[in-house]
Amino acid sequence: MPSAALALDIGATKLAVALVDADGAVLRTERTATRRDDGPAAVLERLWALAERVRGDERPAATGIACGGPLDAAAGVLLGPLHLPGWDRVPIVRLAEERLGRPALLVNDASAGAWGEFRAGAAADARSCVYLTVSSGLGGGAVLDGRLLVGATTNGGELGHVVVRPGGRRCACGRRGCAEAYVAGTQLVGRAREAIAAGRATALRGDVDAEGIAALADADDLAHELWSDALDCLGQLATDLVNAFEPEVLVLDGGLSRRAGLVETVRRAVAEDAIAPIRAVARVERAALDGAAPAVGAGLLALERVR
Amino acid sequence: MPSAALALDIGATKLAVALVDADGAVLRTERTATRRDDGPAAVLERLWALAERVRGDERPAATGIACGGPLDAAAGVLLGPLHLPGWDRVPIVRLAEERLGRPALLVNDASAGAWGEFRAGAAADARSCVYLTVSSGLGGGAVLDGRLLVGATTNGGELGHVVVRPGGRRCACGRRGCAEAYVAGTQLVGRAREAIAAGRATALRGDVDAEGIAALADADDLAHELWSDALDCLGQLATDLVNAFEPEVLVLDGGLSRRAGLVETVRRAVAEDAIAPIRAVARVERAALDGAAPAVGAGLLALERVR
Repeated sequence: MPSAALALDIGATKLAVALVDADGAVLRTERTATRRDDGPAAVLERLWALAERVRGDERPAATGIACGGPLDAAAGVLLGPLHLPGWDRVPIVRLAEERLGRPALLVNDASAGAWGEFRAGAAADARSCVYLTVSSGLGGGAVLDGRLLVGATTNGGELGHVVVRPGGRRCACGRRGCAEAYVAGTQLVGRAREAIAAGRATALRGDVDAEGIAALADADDLAHELWSDALDCLGQLATDLVNAFEPEVLVLDGGLSRRAGLVETVRRAVAEDAIAPIRAVARVERAALDGAAPAVGAGLLALERVR
Repeated sequence: MPSAALALDIGATKLAVALVDADGAVLRTERTATRRDDGPAAVLERLWALAERVRGDERPAATGIACGGPLDAAAGVLLGPLHLPGWDRVPIVRLAEERLGRPALLVNDASAGAWGEFRAGAAADARSCVYLTVSSGLGGGAVLDGRLLVGATTNGGELGHVVVRPGGRRCACGRRGCAEAYVAGTQLVGRAREAIAAGRATALRGDVDAEGIAALADADDLAHELWSDALDCLGQLATDLVNAFEPEVLVLDGGLSRRAGLVETVRRAVAEDAIAPIRAVARVERAALDGAAPAVGAGLLALERVR
């Protein structure tokens, strides 16, 4: 199967491997828990074993690797991804080529997601898109006039790090008030725990996750407040990005994007608040690849590289 | 002179025409007052006369036209630029071709500025730049991986319309709290007049302009407050854009960018607050073309089109 690629997605909680063909179709896929506390050597061993199992007897033409930053895509090195403590300067491309025997390519996972949805998903009929993925973090990428935004450091655009609440919550990046500090699942959970610790009356428990907060938004005051705030911040960010990039499509991905009201809230914010010329053109869409966009994008980019 | 273009810059207060060669050098240039109250026909007559005078006996290969939006660059039509009331659906490219006899191209003025500084100015050694021009308005454009951001409506990125003060001042675009509502010269003047009308003690007079406000920032409380606020908002916007676009260079242009402290304030904001990988790479620079960037960019784009 020379026109397929093996795609590896290295997440905080799961490792996913897919066999992706040149049209972006996922021929088969498997995932396993990352268990990052085991450290890079053990996690990578699990990743290679999973890759070999998914590959089976096929001969994919290339390997695409999607991972969060900071990374150096040109050098093929993970510089110390925020979601993988202790992974300092891991030469992931060289390791993958040694182990899997095919040319490998590294790409920021949200950039890969943008490319996947652009080539084979919700923006497949467009010339440009902005992609936001709302899950434990808030990531983003962009495709402009058919080309992926790679960025000067090869980490792509850091679209979650636009300030939406000046002087607000401290973000993991060090700045105050970034959209990520209000919209990312880990931040929702952090805010819930802070409120519970401060004695706030709520049906939320200390072990609640972000999905649980969203699910209780209609039934609990604290959950409602946190989820409404997250949606407000996401709508504001999306409008900022539609103005700044002028994309044809804004794609919303990630587990939390499936929650009732999220896509509709963002669509309404952009339709009401974006500047007149682009708000008449830009569409807001749910991702079409059901969470596989980073793998599909990484696989397609790897195939395009070896051609 | 087949390798030169005639470049026209249609501003709110001035019309500028330049003869630009293929390296982006301005061979000669002239300007005159727009006097927009005279209406489109009279203003355009002045523009063509100026163009013919600057052209002289040369035979430029093309005409580049820079103008504020909204416009339809692909169709070559001004849809009703915000700075030119009454200019509704002016087919500027057809009119220029009829009058000047060479292929003409229309481009958003801030996008043209970005291209001018990228090809022949402060970002000439880079692969990417974000450009902000601070004068009566706040405009912006971007060049990413060597390509101009054109945008789905051909108006380029509307970089001044990112919210920096949620719920704040009403912007001309209809949204609240856009950077333009705090940084643009007309907005500084509007805020000064509001404060004077409200009885605020100040050395500022009702006929003050934005340069005058900036000049008095060290001597007058109101001027200090307005100018500091503008710089804060501009620094916040610049950091947002550096995070979102990951450019190698952020270029600051426009009359107000020459004011003491502006470039340094933005440079400090980006160095302190942008996300770690890109803040180690991105440079903040004053524009190098002394206000001619939109004309230079429009001329170069027109030349590139006819080649």
